[in-house]
Amino acid sequence: MDTEYIWLGIVGISGVIALLYSAIVTKKILSLSGGTLEMQRIAQAIQEGAQAYLKRQFLTISFVGVVIAGLLYQSLGCHVGIGFTLGAIFSGISGYAGMSVSVRANVRTTQAARSGLAQGLAVAFQAGAITGFLVVGLALLGVVGIFTFLSFLEVTERFLLETLVAFGFGASLISMFSRLAGGIFTKGADVGADLVGKIEQGIPEDDPRNPAVIADNVGDNVGDCAGMSADLFETYVVTLVAALQIAFLTAQNNRELMVYPLVVSGVCVISCVLSTYAVRLGKKENIMNALYKGLGTAVVLSMAGLTGITWAFFGFDRVLYDSVTGVSLVLSGAVGMIATGLLVWITEFYTSTSHRPVREIANASVTGAATNIICGLAVSMEACFLPAIVVCAGILSAYSFAGLFGIALAGSSMLALSGIIIAIDAYGPVTDNAGGIAEMAGLPSSVRTVTDSLDAVGNTTKAVTKGYAIGSAALASLILFSAYTQELKHFFPSLDINFSLSDPFLITGLFLGGAIPYLFSSMSMKAVGRAGAAIVVEVRRQFAEIKGIMDGSQAPEYGKAVDILTKFSLKAMIIPSLLPVVFPLGVYGVISSGFGQAQAFSALGGVLMGTMITGLFLALSMTSGGGAWDNAKKYIEAGNFGGKGSSAYQASVVGDTVGDPYKDTTGPAMNPFIKIVNLVALMLLAFL
Amino acid sequence: MDTEYIWLGIVGISGVIALLYSAIVTKKILSLSGGTLEMQRIAQAIQEGAQAYLKRQFLTISFVGVVIAGLLYQSLGCHVGIGFTLGAIFSGISGYAGMSVSVRANVRTTQAARSGLAQGLAVAFQAGAITGFLVVGLALLGVVGIFTFLSFLEVTERFLLETLVAFGFGASLISMFSRLAGGIFTKGADVGADLVGKIEQGIPEDDPRNPAVIADNVGDNVGDCAGMSADLFETYVVTLVAALQIAFLTAQNNRELMVYPLVVSGVCVISCVLSTYAVRLGKKENIMNALYKGLGTAVVLSMAGLTGITWAFFGFDRVLYDSVTGVSLVLSGAVGMIATGLLVWITEFYTSTSHRPVREIANASVTGAATNIICGLAVSMEACFLPAIVVCAGILSAYSFAGLFGIALAGSSMLALSGIIIAIDAYGPVTDNAGGIAEMAGLPSSVRTVTDSLDAVGNTTKAVTKGYAIGSAALASLILFSAYTQELKHFFPSLDINFSLSDPFLITGLFLGGAIPYLFSSMSMKAVGRAGAAIVVEVRRQFAEIKGIMDGSQAPEYGKAVDILTKFSLKAMIIPSLLPVVFPLGVYGVISSGFGQAQAFSALGGVLMGTMITGLFLALSMTSGGGAWDNAKKYIEAGNFGGKGSSAYQASVVGDTVGDPYKDTTGPAMNPFIKIVNLVALMLLAFL
Repeated sequence: MDTEYIWLGIVGISGVIALLYSAIVTKKILSLSGGTLEMQRIAQAIQEGAQAYLKRQFLTISFVGVVIAGLLYQSLGCHVGIGFTLGAIFSGISGYAGMSVSVRANVRTTQAARSGLAQGLAVAFQAGAITGFLVVGLALLGVVGIFTFLSFLEVTERFLLETLVAFGFGASLISMFSRLAGGIFTKGADVGADLVGKIEQGIPEDDPRNPAVIADNVGDNVGDCAGMSADLFETYVVTLVAALQIAFLTAQNNRELMVYPLVVSGVCVISCVLSTYAVRLGKKENIMNALYKGLGTAVVLSMAGLTGITWAFFGFDRVLYDSVTGVSLVLSGAVGMIATGLLVWITEFYTSTSHRPVREIANASVTGAATNIICGLAVSMEACFLPAIVVCAGILSAYSFAGLFGIALAGSSMLALSGIIIAIDAYGPVTDNAGGIAEMAGLPSSVRTVTDSLDAVGNTTKAVTKGYAIGSAALASLILFSAYTQELKHFFPSLDINFSLSDPFLITGLFLGGAIPYLFSSMSMKAVGRAGAAIVVEVRRQFAEIKGIMDGSQAPEYGKAVDILTKFSLKAMIIPSLLPVVFPLGVYGVISSGFGQAQAFSALGGVLMGTMITGLFLALSMTSGGGAWDNAKKYIEAGNFGGKGSSAYQASVVGDTVGDPYKDTTGPAMNPFIKIVNLVALMLLAFL
Repeated sequence: MDTEYIWLGIVGISGVIALLYSAIVTKKILSLSGGTLEMQRIAQAIQEGAQAYLKRQFLTISFVGVVIAGLLYQSLGCHVGIGFTLGAIFSGISGYAGMSVSVRANVRTTQAARSGLAQGLAVAFQAGAITGFLVVGLALLGVVGIFTFLSFLEVTERFLLETLVAFGFGASLISMFSRLAGGIFTKGADVGADLVGKIEQGIPEDDPRNPAVIADNVGDNVGDCAGMSADLFETYVVTLVAALQIAFLTAQNNRELMVYPLVVSGVCVISCVLSTYAVRLGKKENIMNALYKGLGTAVVLSMAGLTGITWAFFGFDRVLYDSVTGVSLVLSGAVGMIATGLLVWITEFYTSTSHRPVREIANASVTGAATNIICGLAVSMEACFLPAIVVCAGILSAYSFAGLFGIALAGSSMLALSGIIIAIDAYGPVTDNAGGIAEMAGLPSSVRTVTDSLDAVGNTTKAVTKGYAIGSAALASLILFSAYTQELKHFFPSLDINFSLSDPFLITGLFLGGAIPYLFSSMSMKAVGRAGAAIVVEVRRQFAEIKGIMDGSQAPEYGKAVDILTKFSLKAMIIPSLLPVVFPLGVYGVISSGFGQAQAFSALGGVLMGTMITGLFLALSMTSGGGAWDNAKKYIEAGNFGGKGSSAYQASVVGDTVGDPYKDTTGPAMNPFIKIVNLVALMLLAFL
């Protein structure tokens, strides 16, 4: 018991170190120059828009949140209600903090980019690292805090896990709201701004004459930063909680196995902090390679840490359960890290301008928008295949090393790298904004060239994180699924459900579960389309009514576009967000009353798996496809196939616009979506 | 035994009646006038192109076919080789016949359309009916012929079923080739013709100045007619064979149960023939309603026939197995018919110009191509939801009435309506061609108006058939899946595989299986994109080099485009077509050598189910989405949102072009794709 608290203390200290690192880097970034007055004025407008939006978002969410917390409190007890509330609040803080950092770092990145690529990269990456370690630190402290506090109260493990599951559920729900509403906001703005600005009026991206330009930049912060931060917070927490759940179910009397994944996560946080110092631009000025150096270092250090910790914890020879030893655990952990590396590499292949798929789309743009879209859709579907193989190989090898707990460990070792992965991702929207500010402030085009090359890599890294998050979601929900089956055995020992594919109720569940990611995607895509159309109408109106916009003599009414989007996106997110909560409960209710409880549990199991399957593929295809479309445009902009202004470029803008909701709204929201369905099923069991 | 032959004789006679009906109507259609010399000249060109293509296609296929037939003969015996060959040949005949009818009926429909809508509809529908009853007649005679012949030889039921499964496999493989190669041809031509003709040169669809116009019309015949006929032939055969398989497994000593689905199919053919006479245009000239009248009559007559036959066969009270009586069987059959009605209605809702989804897409076109695509993708994803619910409700209710055999019966009663459903579908490409001929022959625009309104409904009915085929495919492959599990128990009684979702090998199989429809879709979409791009290049070249095309003084080189497409599509189909054969064998091989045979069978089961799930959703979304995009264009052409030539129209053309490979290449090919995977697994078991 005493050693347990020492270990937990170490984990807590790791979390604190992550937060300290964030604080120090924040201070450093804030001390940098914010550039010219004009730049600061623009940054200020973006900041205000983003803050106003997030305030309204949290108000809306807290209304829904309070209702759900109340219901949970009533039905499952005080600890669940509190766990949910804490998860929701922490997730909200992550999102808010991510946004706050990026709205301040953007203008400083612009300023740094005036001195060169290396300087721009350094600021943007550090800004990303702030967010990354803030998110990871909060997540780790949240989980380990609840764990330690409740262990101290000597509650049962089941009680402890229920609280943690509720914590994860709170995080997932908020992250879903943020991803979705932020995604609708940012992509509605982007679509609207591009369609009228670039295509109809022929003005460049981020031109200050575009009335939606501030909204577009606000969107980058509330969607890509706040939404992404909440999303990764959720991913981290749920994966960890799922690992604890499986540790408990694997060896009910061995608390060591529950503390172990926490310690692994803690050690990896430290190794990720250290590896941020390895991100350095080489002589060839290849940005992706600079980021890869950081990631590679993180993998190597984390593997060393994992090995050391496992040795200290269990030794290498002792048989822990079945025939699993410390070595098996290290191997399972290695599976997660290798899978991360492969997923990153595959996503880069599909979304970077240097490889075949993006160039194929660019080439298809020569014959028009339709062939661009056809090729983009084909690439997006192709991009699922290899990640699915990697996930499957990961599942099988982790399982053969250490059983279900091996899969759980692979999942948490994937997520243990979150700090550096988020840093690489969050750097994207910062540079995107930096480019926008450079354009609006009328800085020389050399600055824009620097931010553009940073941004093109940002598109890839954004896709990379999403592929990574959704890949880990497959593992996490697989673990949650087996938690569901095992909890079912525990709570309803009399029902003999073996979840066999010969059972028509299970099959029905599979099809029903498979259907909801499609319905959800449809709803969220439509919301973006409608938001975009509303902005198109507004921007057209401003161009028509405010005569001086085009010659620069009158300023557009930026606030109007921000306002329209804020209202629209918060309204549009409610129904699709409730889908993953209501649908599984509905299936259970209908089948249970029509056929019986055992049939309903079987169908519900099918729903979980069906959602996981179609959700995984939709998310993978959408995030990679969207990134590829975006970079096909960037590739043409760089002077290929006729360059900016050519007909191929026009076609690629259409593809980019279609890819926007794919990659930044619907695709990433699928990650919390899948997990919410699973967590709801788990809590339903506890309730029944 | 004697009554069995009487029943089989009745089924045989039904098949002959279907063929006789086709022959009589063919004679009637051929006696109609083929219009002006110009019209006949154009029709001749289309006919020659289509025949030349099909000849080459069959040559290519027969090469692959002979190799596979040889392998099957070697590994599984003479009966399997012969069954496969027969299935392939029959499927080929169906496709060829479908094409032959439609290339002759098209010009006669144009001619009839000069007298009015009712006349045009009558000819086009009758042409469709010829194809429909030819396909159904051949399929029924093929199955019942093999069944009767082998029963006469007194072989074992297992031997009989193996032959029939091979017959189905042959049909599926050919249908897959035809759907895919035909789909690449037709949509390559369509995409290429539209992009240069409509968008770049601003000439109308089917303008004789477009060098790809003959290729486009040839494509309608080889893709939508020949491909569709082979596809429905396959669907009919495989569903029936699956029902026989389950009948055998349900009651091993009761041959009555095996003969019964055959008799039901036979009776329904007659009722479908009768119901063709109910297709009549009412006073409101609503074409869809006229077709609905035919379908409604078919459902009512078939239900009556089903009830009567069941009574004659089993009576209503006798318990056949478990607690299933004749009444239960009638109810299960009714489930299939009701599901057909619902699927037709839902698809019509999503793809017809009179409802919300198509108008939404049309409305989104006002803000450009990107919003058109976003909205179209959203509609395509939404369109999966209700069909999935219908399929699930169908599975559960048929199962609760009569167990697995109930599901099989629901599937075959769905397919029993094929005659009329194919008639409604095949009418589409005929009118599409008729419109093309009217345009090219320079007939007055009133004729084009008639063919256009026929064609818009044709888009809906084409989508309807595909929704119906894929819905029935879900049932058929479910049955094949349970055949797989039960055969596994029979052949490998020592392996205790329960296909539980707790088994990581099964899960891996699910993900792997889920991935291949995506890979397949990607390959086939890209093939269309590349074919389209090749045609764009060729058409641009002709416009540039042959100066007199635009003023009509020189004719384009139509044959070049046909030739390019023929070569390209036959080359492009090979690899994706082999995917469903090679992939399941590969998964089995890898897992079996890495982990063991039981694990491999479990993973293979997962592959079957995974393919079914993602394949179903991809196919549903693609076929409905594509139809909706096409009709959104037609809706705008009809004068809404600015009409022809407006910017909304331009945007809708892009959407239509993207929808083309969705609805006519990849989506429909998914139906045989799913079944081939299942049939390969079944034959693998027999081999092992």
